[in-house]
Amino acid sequence: MLYIGKKDIAKVDRSLILNAISNAYTLLLDENYTMPDRIHVQNGENTLLLMPCFESNYFATKLVSVFPDAPRLGAPAVNGIMTLADNKTGMPLAVMDGAALTAERTGAVGGLAVKILTRENIETAGVIGAGVQGVAQVRYLLLNRRIKQMMIFNRSPETARARVAGLASEYPDVDFKVAQTADGLVKACNLVVAATTSKTPVFSNDPELVKGKTFISIGSFRPDMKEFPDAVIETANRIYVDTPFASKEAGDLSQPLAQGLVKNSELIGFSSLVRDPLTDEQKKDPAFNTLFFKCVGMALFDLTVASAVYEFALKNDLGVKLDF
Amino acid sequence: MLYIGKKDIAKVDRSLILNAISNAYTLLLDENYTMPDRIHVQNGENTLLLMPCFESNYFATKLVSVFPDAPRLGAPAVNGIMTLADNKTGMPLAVMDGAALTAERTGAVGGLAVKILTRENIETAGVIGAGVQGVAQVRYLLLNRRIKQMMIFNRSPETARARVAGLASEYPDVDFKVAQTADGLVKACNLVVAATTSKTPVFSNDPELVKGKTFISIGSFRPDMKEFPDAVIETANRIYVDTPFASKEAGDLSQPLAQGLVKNSELIGFSSLVRDPLTDEQKKDPAFNTLFFKCVGMALFDLTVASAVYEFALKNDLGVKLDF
Repeated sequence: MLYIGKKDIAKVDRSLILNAISNAYTLLLDENYTMPDRIHVQNGENTLLLMPCFESNYFATKLVSVFPDAPRLGAPAVNGIMTLADNKTGMPLAVMDGAALTAERTGAVGGLAVKILTRENIETAGVIGAGVQGVAQVRYLLLNRRIKQMMIFNRSPETARARVAGLASEYPDVDFKVAQTADGLVKACNLVVAATTSKTPVFSNDPELVKGKTFISIGSFRPDMKEFPDAVIETANRIYVDTPFASKEAGDLSQPLAQGLVKNSELIGFSSLVRDPLTDEQKKDPAFNTLFFKCVGMALFDLTVASAVYEFALKNDLGVKLDF
Repeated sequence: MLYIGKKDIAKVDRSLILNAISNAYTLLLDENYTMPDRIHVQNGENTLLLMPCFESNYFATKLVSVFPDAPRLGAPAVNGIMTLADNKTGMPLAVMDGAALTAERTGAVGGLAVKILTRENIETAGVIGAGVQGVAQVRYLLLNRRIKQMMIFNRSPETARARVAGLASEYPDVDFKVAQTADGLVKACNLVVAATTSKTPVFSNDPELVKGKTFISIGSFRPDMKEFPDAVIETANRIYVDTPFASKEAGDLSQPLAQGLVKNSELIGFSSLVRDPLTDEQKKDPAFNTLFFKCVGMALFDLTVASAVYEFALKNDLGVKLDF
C-alpha cells in the first residue's frame, strides 16, 4: 500500500488530473459506477462525511471531517483522508491526503469547465476568492487558456496581494492584478470564477455587467451560500451543473429555483458537453455566450482523480511504501 | 500522521488491548459515545462496510471490504483499513492495518469474557476453529488463565496440527493437543471458545456434554451461521451478549430466539458484568456455572483498541511517520 502526501500529489501532472475529471463525466454519462449518497455522521457540532464510490478498476472512500471549532485550537476546520482500493481483489492500494486531493480535483473541475465553455482566445480572466481553492482555480485555468491579464479579488486585499505575489513568480508571463472591487473584476474579464463561501452575492446584480461572459461557481456548497447575483442566472443562455445534486445543495441554484427565476428542466448536465462539446461557432454566437456552470463535486471525481494520482505515483516512484 | 502496520500492531502489549475492550464496555454502559449503525455499501457481489465511532478523545472509522471472489485471484476476501483521528481538532492521527487490528480486538473480546466468566483455577480449555481468529483466541485466553491442557479442533486436522506446532513453541508450558472430534474437545474442557463461520453446530446437541462449562461464540456473525447446538442455550444459566445487535446478527441467538428457545429479555449485556463482575461464589454455584457469551463486535471496540495501539506506538516509537 502507498501513502501519497500533499507534496507528492502536487507533483502529479495537472493535465492527468484534468483528464481524470473528464473520465468521471464519461463514467457518469455511461452510468458505469456505483455512488451512494454522501453519508453524514453527526457528533454534536462536528460532522464526518463518508463518500464511497466504485468504478470497474478501483473503488475509493473519502473521509472528510468538519470541526467548526478546530481553528480555535490551531487546526483546520476540514480534514480529509482518501483511501483507494482495487475493485477486482478488494486490496487497499493507497491512502492519500484528502485535502490536497480535493484541492486538485476541484481545481480541475473548474479547469475543465474553462476548457469546454470558453473560447480558446480569451485573454482576461478573474478569480474571486483567494483561498486554497482560488489558487487551484487559477492554476487549472492557466493550464487551459493563455490568459494575458488575470485579476484576483478577495474580501481581504492583503490576502489577495500575497497570493498575487506568489502566483506572479509561478507564472511570469501572466499579468496578475489585485482587483479593488469584484464589480471591477467582472467588468474587466471574459471569464469569472468564484471560489468563496459567501452567503451574499459578491458582485452587483446587473445584467449589463454579466452579459457575454462565462461564470463558474465553485465555492457555494450549501443552500445558504450564494456567490453570484440573480443577474447571472437570469442572463445566462445556458446553465450547466456537474451533478443533479447541485440544484439542491448550493444556494446559487436552490435559491433562484425556489423563487422561480429558473426551472429545474433548464439545468443541463455538464457531462453531455464532455461528450458533445460546444463548437467554436456556438461559443461565438451571442445567443449562446453567457454561460453559467455550477459545481458541488461528487465522489466519482475523487475516485478518478485518486486513481490517476496513484498510477502517476507508481510510475514515478512517488509516495511512501507501507507494509500491508 | 502515523501508519501502524500489522508487525507493529503485533508488538502492542495484549494487556493494553484487553483493557481497551474493558474501556469500550464502560463507555457503552455510560452511553459516552456516538456509534451509528454499521453502513453497508453494496456493489454487485462485493460489500464495503463503514464503521464510524466517536468518544471524547478520539474518533475512528473502520473500512472493511468483503470481496467473496477475491480468493480466486489470490487475495483475501476481507480487507480493512482503520483511520483514527483527534476528536478535539478533527486532525487525522493514524491509519492502521484493519485486519490485524480486528484480529487483536476480537481476540481481546473473547479474552475479557474468559477473564470475567471463568473461575481463576480452570486448567483445561478448547478452541474450535484454527484460523487467524482461533489463534488470537488462544493467545488472549492464555493471557488470562493458566491453562495446563489446551485442545484445538479444526475441520481440517492438518491446519489444527500446524497451528498447534506454532503455538506449542510460543507457549512451551502449555500442553497443546489436536482434538479428534469437537465432542471430545467439549467433553475434556472447562471452557470452550468457537471461532468458526459454521452454518451447523460444531458439536452434539447434548445437555450433559455442555453442563457446568463456559461457552464463548466468536465466529458466527450472520443469521445463517450457528456454531453451538441448542443444548448450550437451553442449558446455560446466563446468556451474555456484547451488544444488543448480537441477537439479530448471529444465528447462535437469532435462531433459538425465533424458535422460542430463549427470550430477548433473558439476554444480558456483558457491559453490566464489566462493572459488577461475578463473585467467586457465583462462579462456583452450580445454578450459575453454565455460561454462554455471544459477541458480534462493534465499532466502539475498534475505536478504543485503535486508540490504545496509537498511544502505545507513540510511546514506543513504532509506526511510519507520514507527512500530513
